[in-house]
Amino acid sequence: MEESFVPLRGIKNDLHGRLACYKQDWTGGFRTGIRILAPTTYIFFASAIPVISFGEQLERNTDGVLTAVQTLASTALCGIIHSIVGGQPLLILGVAEPTVLMYTFMFNFAKDRPDLGRNLFLAWTGWVCVWTAILLFLLAILGACSIINRFTRIAGELFGLLIAMLFMQQAIKGLVDEFRIPERENRKALEFVPSWRFANGMFAIVLSFGLLLTALRSRKARSWRYGAGWLRGFIADYGVPLMVLVWTGVSYIPYGSVPKGIPRRLFSPNPWSPGAYDNWTVIKDMAHVPLLYIIGAFIPATMIAVLYYFDHSVASQLAQQKEFNLRKPPSFHYDLLLLGFLTLLCGLIGIPPSNGVIPQSPMHTKSLATLKHQLLRNRLVATARKSMSQNASLSQLYSSMQDAYQQMQTPLVYQQPSVRRGLNELKDSTVQLASSMGNIDAPVDETVFDIEKEIDDLLPIEVKEQRLSNLLQAAMVGACVAAMPLLKKIPTSVLWGYFAFMAIESLPGNQFWERILLLFTAPSRRYKVLEEYHTTFVETVPFKTIAMFTLFQTTYLLVCFGITWIPIAGVLFPLMIMLLVPVRQYILPKLFKGAHLTDLDAAEYEESPAIPFSLAAVSSERFNLCL
Amino acid sequence: MEESFVPLRGIKNDLHGRLACYKQDWTGGFRTGIRILAPTTYIFFASAIPVISFGEQLERNTDGVLTAVQTLASTALCGIIHSIVGGQPLLILGVAEPTVLMYTFMFNFAKDRPDLGRNLFLAWTGWVCVWTAILLFLLAILGACSIINRFTRIAGELFGLLIAMLFMQQAIKGLVDEFRIPERENRKALEFVPSWRFANGMFAIVLSFGLLLTALRSRKARSWRYGAGWLRGFIADYGVPLMVLVWTGVSYIPYGSVPKGIPRRLFSPNPWSPGAYDNWTVIKDMAHVPLLYIIGAFIPATMIAVLYYFDHSVASQLAQQKEFNLRKPPSFHYDLLLLGFLTLLCGLIGIPPSNGVIPQSPMHTKSLATLKHQLLRNRLVATARKSMSQNASLSQLYSSMQDAYQQMQTPLVYQQPSVRRGLNELKDSTVQLASSMGNIDAPVDETVFDIEKEIDDLLPIEVKEQRLSNLLQAAMVGACVAAMPLLKKIPTSVLWGYFAFMAIESLPGNQFWERILLLFTAPSRRYKVLEEYHTTFVETVPFKTIAMFTLFQTTYLLVCFGITWIPIAGVLFPLMIMLLVPVRQYILPKLFKGAHLTDLDAAEYEESPAIPFSLAAVSSERFNLCL
Repeated sequence: MEESFVPLRGIKNDLHGRLACYKQDWTGGFRTGIRILAPTTYIFFASAIPVISFGEQLERNTDGVLTAVQTLASTALCGIIHSIVGGQPLLILGVAEPTVLMYTFMFNFAKDRPDLGRNLFLAWTGWVCVWTAILLFLLAILGACSIINRFTRIAGELFGLLIAMLFMQQAIKGLVDEFRIPERENRKALEFVPSWRFANGMFAIVLSFGLLLTALRSRKARSWRYGAGWLRGFIADYGVPLMVLVWTGVSYIPYGSVPKGIPRRLFSPNPWSPGAYDNWTVIKDMAHVPLLYIIGAFIPATMIAVLYYFDHSVASQLAQQKEFNLRKPPSFHYDLLLLGFLTLLCGLIGIPPSNGVIPQSPMHTKSLATLKHQLLRNRLVATARKSMSQNASLSQLYSSMQDAYQQMQTPLVYQQPSVRRGLNELKDSTVQLASSMGNIDAPVDETVFDIEKEIDDLLPIEVKEQRLSNLLQAAMVGACVAAMPLLKKIPTSVLWGYFAFMAIESLPGNQFWERILLLFTAPSRRYKVLEEYHTTFVETVPFKTIAMFTLFQTTYLLVCFGITWIPIAGVLFPLMIMLLVPVRQYILPKLFKGAHLTDLDAAEYEESPAIPFSLAAVSSERFNLCL
Repeated sequence: MEESFVPLRGIKNDLHGRLACYKQDWTGGFRTGIRILAPTTYIFFASAIPVISFGEQLERNTDGVLTAVQTLASTALCGIIHSIVGGQPLLILGVAEPTVLMYTFMFNFAKDRPDLGRNLFLAWTGWVCVWTAILLFLLAILGACSIINRFTRIAGELFGLLIAMLFMQQAIKGLVDEFRIPERENRKALEFVPSWRFANGMFAIVLSFGLLLTALRSRKARSWRYGAGWLRGFIADYGVPLMVLVWTGVSYIPYGSVPKGIPRRLFSPNPWSPGAYDNWTVIKDMAHVPLLYIIGAFIPATMIAVLYYFDHSVASQLAQQKEFNLRKPPSFHYDLLLLGFLTLLCGLIGIPPSNGVIPQSPMHTKSLATLKHQLLRNRLVATARKSMSQNASLSQLYSSMQDAYQQMQTPLVYQQPSVRRGLNELKDSTVQLASSMGNIDAPVDETVFDIEKEIDDLLPIEVKEQRLSNLLQAAMVGACVAAMPLLKKIPTSVLWGYFAFMAIESLPGNQFWERILLLFTAPSRRYKVLEEYHTTFVETVPFKTIAMFTLFQTTYLLVCFGITWIPIAGVLFPLMIMLLVPVRQYILPKLFKGAHLTDLDAAEYEESPAIPFSLAAVSSERFNLCL
């Protein structure tokens, strides 16, 4: 992406690029058929469960003014709008933890003012959202997202790991709290005598670890040795939601022999309870907010704007990392503009706004890569089986597989450079394989050519880029509002297990994390890292340099994590991560060799000056693919 | 083994064979050094924990006449004697579940007779042991063990799996009971109110699954990616006892906030409590038993003798399976004779007798195979590293490794047929490896030749056959009697987890189990079984036949399992398994093709009649190795 600050140019480019693929975004989605439901359900759970839990948190903190109904409504509304008119459809929107913290802070400020108070709180946040929206418009129009390529891997992955730590912290805190008496509850209730509290805590450990371990295992079902292929595929695709169901079922086993409050379950009003929809008409009250507070709303608005600018862009960036080999263009500027409108909308109807979320956004891309992989793989396996049943030689096998591969490409992107790259890789490995077997023209059978495994190795990572999964998951989040009575059957402990699951699921693929693991790997086994991840740096950078770089990054991460513990300023921890940009640009090059830095954290502004517009070129290459 | 029923010939042959290796049994053990402690500790726990738990069971069933002190004493005493003067030192002795069942039955019989009662119960069992010993002497002298080769793999493995099922059943039953009020306890105690009972049950689930999962994982520590090699080795060797410690520690975390009885812990009198050693002088009372009961004691004695004859021989057989490539001769007849003496001894001092136990005996052999493997491996890895640092070619590397391998063989067995076989395998695979790499004379480095992995693949299974580990573990069991106050800190739930661990650990290597798994393996993945187990039958027998055979065996297993549930007759379930011998010999050959049966369950009596004494030959070959 070009660093251009000419007003509106970024937005225009984004619109131009995305409009060219817009039709294919939908046709591609619908052509996938029923299998689109696998990534959809997966992301729906990853999106809905934290939002429900944040809603509970908000309910406690705002004295019931905002509840899970509002956070779900915001996530659904923003998600649906973004999936239809947004730029990057891989980006998942939702109410995030920083928003909850900001709203808590604002409520604590407002509730004690006689001329504001609990009644005008939502009207006042309406004004905060108006200011935030204006700031976001300005940032988008002035091309603030142009500097997104200065957020190198080091910043993005550090942020990703920080979010994973916060999720894990929430899981542990939630589990510990299961042993305590919750606030705002009747302390004398039967379920809070010490024995039942202890029982509740132990039950919570069983449920949350049960969910965590089975969910992690189910994700690997495809490589299980047992069970039919379709069953393994089904478990891998739907295992996590299934496990939420199973462990909710388990939580009802002792029903009857334990008091009603054990295990603890979600606590939210039904959307049709009185008072649960006071917020929708908040716009009427906005005129009643004293002028001083309208102006004062600018202060929290700047904080939120900075936060959203960073969060939204980094979530989008992490969903579009290089490894995914995306073929459609990014849309940072336009998406920020749209986020402004969404924030305004949420503010005027009195619900907390949503923004791009981590780790859900990269999880979304990953699950779509798996989907595309499965689609391609099934086709190629069928082709290979057919060829082999006709006693084809390896070269015939290869050419029929190549044909099938080409047919699977959407006509839009077919024969473009990066598609050809995929094909070349396919050819190279097959030929290599053939020559290692001695004879490329002899008939092959399955003992020599292990179809499923070979094809898994041959296929490049590709992502099914479309809008349907995002739209469907957002619609399902919306359906949750109606399904509140059902959701309330989920034990909170299953939620904590799910939080831990999300934290752990977000780790693979994060090079920072891989490097931390590398530090703990026995020297004699380090070569295994090479086998698994094909990361350049393990080969090119001395281990000591990797260790130093990783220790620096870990220290920085721990400082950021420490900052989140500071009561109010903690909300601004993203600023600490933005500070990494100058640190990376000016300080790190003094501590590490340039070549090493390039391998550990390729920053595009450090590329050789002979091709100053390489970024633009990369971007336009991706863009052309859609034409 | 020859089927000879000439009196005493079997015992004479056994003594002749084992005496020839007797000195090496000790020197070999001491030469291993400190590493012998790994299998020793492993087997000590596997031996002591069930014995303690059976002791608890016996204490409840015999109204406190017999306790864990007596079962531990019997296990230690018999173990020490057997390890020193016994024939097969791989065989582990201990008080087993059938013994507990028989003693319970006898106590229920005795307690209500006015002329016997609780007081003369032990004296009466003394007489039962006298009769049992006489029967065992007769069986041993008349060569009853000659028919041991009729107990083919199908019977042995079925018995092994049945024991695993019984262990697992005990684990599940124990865990379920944690939610209930135990018998003989004060039902009004604080820890038995519903809330604390539920809390205790949930805590038990956490502790037992915690132990089970961590123990299973620790056994695989050697292949972990993280941690230094010595740490991984230490965890793999001592992880299971370590985890018992860790989870016992965890059980004390809520100490202070829960009543004293939560979680439930072992309940046994200290050996120095009054009444805990009434039994030792029981021989004085034996004269007071009415004559009618002395004669009547013959009836339970026959049952016990049949049970011990079978149990002891099969445990010994499973510890000496073909796959282990043992080099020292078996000793079925002499060991049965010794068992007679041990039973007599135990009877006269009023403790329940011990016999050969499953799965501890095969676990013992397996852990010694791992030990031997480690010793060989360390030597070969060091040799290979040294060669590679001198830029050796693969053929040089091979020859230096071969030298090292030969040096590691004890002079006693060196250059014998089965050793040569080990070397040939080493050579074949290395040459194969070399040719697959194209050039046998080019220098190799670690990226091409993954030392640790290759050597793991090259080494044949060999067992460190010696007496030291058996003696030490028995002595440690003896020390448990003194350490009773410490043992009582172990929560019962950790015990249940350990039972489940033992059941699961006994499965790998059991071909019956592998075949059951094969039935559930997706057809496209069945080749993986080949890669892992190198079992002939997967290649030579049609899948349908494997399935039929396995289903037959599974049905038989379930019938045996059902029989154990019948109150008294259940003790005789081994008879059901002995019935498999005629079934295998006369019925199965009518249902399956001979060639298939040979691959699925090689029975030596079915070998071609041209070499009628092949069994004797095999036995004498193994015997000669010790000369």
